[in-house]
Amino acid sequence: MDIATDVHAAWLPSEAFRPIGTRRVVVQGEGELVETVRREVEGATGVYGGGLVGTGTGYDVVFALAGAQPLVGEAAGVLAGYEGGALGGEGFLVGRVEGVTVVVAEGGAGLLYGLFHLVRLGESAFRGELAARAHVPALRSRMLDHWDNLTAHPVMGHVERGYAGGSIFWRDGEARRDLPRVRAYARLLAAVGINAVSVNNVNVQAAETRLLTERLADVAELADAFRPYGIRLHLSVNFASPVVLGDLETADPLDEGVRAWWAAAAGRVYAAIPDFGGFVVKADSEGQPGPFAYGRTHADGANMLAAALRPYGGQVHWRAFVYDHRQDWRDRTTDRARAAYDHFAPQDGEFAANVVLQVKHGPMDFQTREPVSPVIAAMPRTRLAVELQVTQEYTGQQRHVCYLGPMWREVLGFGPWGEGGKSVADLVADPTAGGGLVAVSNVGDDAYWTGHPLAQANLYAFGRLAWDPAADPVALLDEWIDLTFVPLLSRDAAPLRSTLHAVMDGSWRTYERYTAPLGVGFMVRPGHHYGPDVDGYEYTPWGTYHYADRDGVGVDRTRATGTGYTGQYPAAWAEVYEARETCPDELLLFFHHVPYGHVLGSGVTVIQHIYDTHFAGAEEAAEMRARWAELAGTGLVDASLYARVLERLDEQVRCAGEWRDQVNAYFWRKSGVPDAHGRLIP
Amino acid sequence: MDIATDVHAAWLPSEAFRPIGTRRVVVQGEGELVETVRREVEGATGVYGGGLVGTGTGYDVVFALAGAQPLVGEAAGVLAGYEGGALGGEGFLVGRVEGVTVVVAEGGAGLLYGLFHLVRLGESAFRGELAARAHVPALRSRMLDHWDNLTAHPVMGHVERGYAGGSIFWRDGEARRDLPRVRAYARLLAAVGINAVSVNNVNVQAAETRLLTERLADVAELADAFRPYGIRLHLSVNFASPVVLGDLETADPLDEGVRAWWAAAAGRVYAAIPDFGGFVVKADSEGQPGPFAYGRTHADGANMLAAALRPYGGQVHWRAFVYDHRQDWRDRTTDRARAAYDHFAPQDGEFAANVVLQVKHGPMDFQTREPVSPVIAAMPRTRLAVELQVTQEYTGQQRHVCYLGPMWREVLGFGPWGEGGKSVADLVADPTAGGGLVAVSNVGDDAYWTGHPLAQANLYAFGRLAWDPAADPVALLDEWIDLTFVPLLSRDAAPLRSTLHAVMDGSWRTYERYTAPLGVGFMVRPGHHYGPDVDGYEYTPWGTYHYADRDGVGVDRTRATGTGYTGQYPAAWAEVYEARETCPDELLLFFHHVPYGHVLGSGVTVIQHIYDTHFAGAEEAAEMRARWAELAGTGLVDASLYARVLERLDEQVRCAGEWRDQVNAYFWRKSGVPDAHGRLIP
Repeated sequence: MDIATDVHAAWLPSEAFRPIGTRRVVVQGEGELVETVRREVEGATGVYGGGLVGTGTGYDVVFALAGAQPLVGEAAGVLAGYEGGALGGEGFLVGRVEGVTVVVAEGGAGLLYGLFHLVRLGESAFRGELAARAHVPALRSRMLDHWDNLTAHPVMGHVERGYAGGSIFWRDGEARRDLPRVRAYARLLAAVGINAVSVNNVNVQAAETRLLTERLADVAELADAFRPYGIRLHLSVNFASPVVLGDLETADPLDEGVRAWWAAAAGRVYAAIPDFGGFVVKADSEGQPGPFAYGRTHADGANMLAAALRPYGGQVHWRAFVYDHRQDWRDRTTDRARAAYDHFAPQDGEFAANVVLQVKHGPMDFQTREPVSPVIAAMPRTRLAVELQVTQEYTGQQRHVCYLGPMWREVLGFGPWGEGGKSVADLVADPTAGGGLVAVSNVGDDAYWTGHPLAQANLYAFGRLAWDPAADPVALLDEWIDLTFVPLLSRDAAPLRSTLHAVMDGSWRTYERYTAPLGVGFMVRPGHHYGPDVDGYEYTPWGTYHYADRDGVGVDRTRATGTGYTGQYPAAWAEVYEARETCPDELLLFFHHVPYGHVLGSGVTVIQHIYDTHFAGAEEAAEMRARWAELAGTGLVDASLYARVLERLDEQVRCAGEWRDQVNAYFWRKSGVPDAHGRLIP
Repeated sequence: MDIATDVHAAWLPSEAFRPIGTRRVVVQGEGELVETVRREVEGATGVYGGGLVGTGTGYDVVFALAGAQPLVGEAAGVLAGYEGGALGGEGFLVGRVEGVTVVVAEGGAGLLYGLFHLVRLGESAFRGELAARAHVPALRSRMLDHWDNLTAHPVMGHVERGYAGGSIFWRDGEARRDLPRVRAYARLLAAVGINAVSVNNVNVQAAETRLLTERLADVAELADAFRPYGIRLHLSVNFASPVVLGDLETADPLDEGVRAWWAAAAGRVYAAIPDFGGFVVKADSEGQPGPFAYGRTHADGANMLAAALRPYGGQVHWRAFVYDHRQDWRDRTTDRARAAYDHFAPQDGEFAANVVLQVKHGPMDFQTREPVSPVIAAMPRTRLAVELQVTQEYTGQQRHVCYLGPMWREVLGFGPWGEGGKSVADLVADPTAGGGLVAVSNVGDDAYWTGHPLAQANLYAFGRLAWDPAADPVALLDEWIDLTFVPLLSRDAAPLRSTLHAVMDGSWRTYERYTAPLGVGFMVRPGHHYGPDVDGYEYTPWGTYHYADRDGVGVDRTRATGTGYTGQYPAAWAEVYEARETCPDELLLFFHHVPYGHVLGSGVTVIQHIYDTHFAGAEEAAEMRARWAELAGTGLVDASLYARVLERLDEQVRCAGEWRDQVNAYFWRKSGVPDAHGRLIP
């Protein structure tokens, strides 16, 4: 099986397999994913001198599928204390008994994840004794959505909101068939625990609609490439497919002909791809067709597709990103932030069991800072997936370092019912109601996969957080560093590690500081969304406003005097957000319109906070660059990677200065309040 | 010769030729353009029952080329009082003697213009006696520039700043070869006196660069189509052609190899097109290459090309649109308005005799209101052409009615030296130093030529003003109405005429009222330039700012405290513009940064003026639409033309409302000053 080696190895350089590669390894069990484990071990031991051995000889490591006979003693011992079925198909046990490191799993996927776990542990997996410990993914669906187009869209390009080159799947209307690259990608994803991928843009154009029908062979080929890594392939489908493809005159979800059409379509898909994951749907959103056209509800629409997939075990990921994108900016009563809740919460309990409602983490659109979407607490009888954006549309477009692990950790740890209540992670992890975690991929055909080499860490952290939402994002960075950089070093890794932490740990906060302040969001250049434009969306139909005037700024979303959005939260947070005094500083302008002189919890006024954070953020960007530049000539990182990162940090410093100056100038011109520290505001 | 008849006839409907078509016509003389006259007369008389007759029989009309022998008596009589050569090749005499209408010219072009003159006169050309009168174009170069690309630019489309469909010359990288359409176009242009056309965008990309070399045959074919109408074809050329085409490693204008390259290129062009007009060049502007790269001056660059063209009588139109488009918005000392003067005025006298410096009418970029460019008064030893924009980039993009005749008349009548001095028209008309009038065309492959049918009037007025800069723009509208609409009517034209005047006469002022106020300019959506975005260009590198803050608005361009731009004008205007008290209201914010409470000459404050004009302008747009709608069902205009105009007026009304609300809301939020009349500002 050919795997691409001409692209950056990311967190799977050959050297990371040295600890396993030097061992004698037993692999017990059968099945496609066990074969993948066997092939990985063969590859590593072939390079580093160990070997794949039988149970009759001495061995250092055992990978064993429970049920394989006869199970070697060490594996049977590790397994002994565990109830069958507790691990599921994806969990694994790892332990070390009498000098033998053991991974036991009940399914091939579990065994593969166990292999990558040992890779992460490195040499420490082969020292002393390790009590057996189970590792089971918290979320059952850990999915990446690709917004890849078959042909380059005249504005959005080949990958919508992609900042890493073209699609790895499609080019100029055709499948690229660069399967070695797809396999290399699948392997990287499996190593961080991702088990589902959708391969085309949720904005489904005419050509993409046909992936479901006459172009199914292209999809099956991709599914074949992902399958050995335990990843199920999904397709974004056009809700109007029966009409667009010319077969029917309606796409009404309650029409029998339409239902039969989708049932037949699903049947054909599963004939070609027996483990097909299901459909992703963006309906009645930003111009995409949907059930509204027929007077039907979203539940009607989703359930119709779910019925077609149910016989085969497929799922519908139905996106909750529905709002009026033709809003009148003059109308301050309409609030885009309310839209998903207003549309979906009343339908809780109406969605079929194999529908997952896919909800963006915040109520708007992947801004640098948003409150957690109230939809997540409002639909206890609906399977929910939280959608994150690994691709940095609003967070620097992979030209800026912006490590998003800390943001995602905050989202996952947020408790909508306040202290002691369930967290977002608990909700999506719920074994019956849970859906999972989904992200928009940041990968393209760039040699570093993600354009900015350090943006690989976002993809890494997403997968690992989907497996364990309680993981510490800084510890995840260390894991990523230990895999990506350390194995390549023949010297002390501490200086490199400390540089990467200095550059990355706080980069999301830094980005927040020099961009839109206090949770108000947007203020980006319309269309491409890169760089500042404070009024760029202020008088548009997109529902994304800040309402700055000479006296104050922010959106009044209170029940008392505003749009009432705060009322969409359970009481604990509804109260906190409702009052200016208790609303967290970083979300103040999201929830309140306040005078520039309003004093924040931090003790400074809103206007001074704007100035202070913008000066600070731009300075921090300059410090990040300076810190990185110290690596020059040290040989701690590859020269071309060093240069690529430096070139992007140059741009980040430039752009952060532009943000600082535009935001400060805008608010200075509007408020007339001078900077308390007398710094230059142009 | 095939001429397109499947597009709108514009100002040359067959019916406009009825008066001539019913007459017996003598055409005396030889040559290609005399043949065109003959063909036109044949066509018209074939339809309407007259005939092309010999001198031996009775006749009603004579077209005679001076020198043709034997000249019929009436023509000889008309010619008698005039000195040979006074008419030039393009002038003509017209008179009516003893029941015979006579046109005499010294060149074929003059005879053709005389024909179209008779068409304009209609039946009145055949009544009573007319004393012989000479008609000679005031400006010798009357040129239309097409910003047409060979292939659709991903952002700019097939025609840059085109609002009337694709190019009539090019499509998908190839010549369209729709020569009947090109001939119909040439005929329309000849009828308004245009004698020069350039057929490709001044932003010359790779494919377009080759028009000069291997694709010359495509250009020659177009030249053949224009030639019978007295129009010389020009090409926009890439200053870096010798490098881009791979022949040389430099485009240094003082390099002998480069000079030889251009000489050879010109030789090949003239071998294919003996009457080729010359080159149009945008150099060192908005990313286009130019002499600066080699440390040479614009005169060096222009003169090098001029030398190549000189042996063949060709000209260089060298554009003065040179400025820093990477300006720092923070830097208030740099002033884009100064750029053309600063670059070019010091080079007065250095340009070769066959270089025409092509200067935009204002110092910025075709805004709705700008002062006249000071370059025009600053270069007495340079041949100057004034460049206008017939295509409505900043004036409603042919979705809004905006009749520009009055604006152009103001520009042409402006006297840079004040009362009694030469006007702009005088300067460009100067028989030795004059260059002419150039405009960017508004024509595309739309069925009405110009998208908005009423935008035809702008093209009409441009040609007629280039012939006679003193013409009254409202009278030109009447000419246009009399040709375009009246001949098609079998009833009283007065109601239609009055509607068209109501909709069009004041439309430029109306457009000015609802868009950027008091000459400050821009405030359009970046990129496409349609619709409002008050801060759209405020923090960009384009040099187009308004500096609005909570206290005031406008650009200080005074010598006393500003950029010193006022000092580029001769004393009379320098003084007028320098002082707030004397600066014309409509240019106040172009020259001054003033508080919102500043009282205008009109007696109202700046802020109240903004509110008043924006409410008024949007109301006027609604009145224009209402007025047009009264034509419904009257049969006074063709139903599809009626519908096209109405649909665009709907958009104009919507967009004017958007302008009103965004501009008012912006300044209300910033100034905090309420509308004195308590109207709703959102």
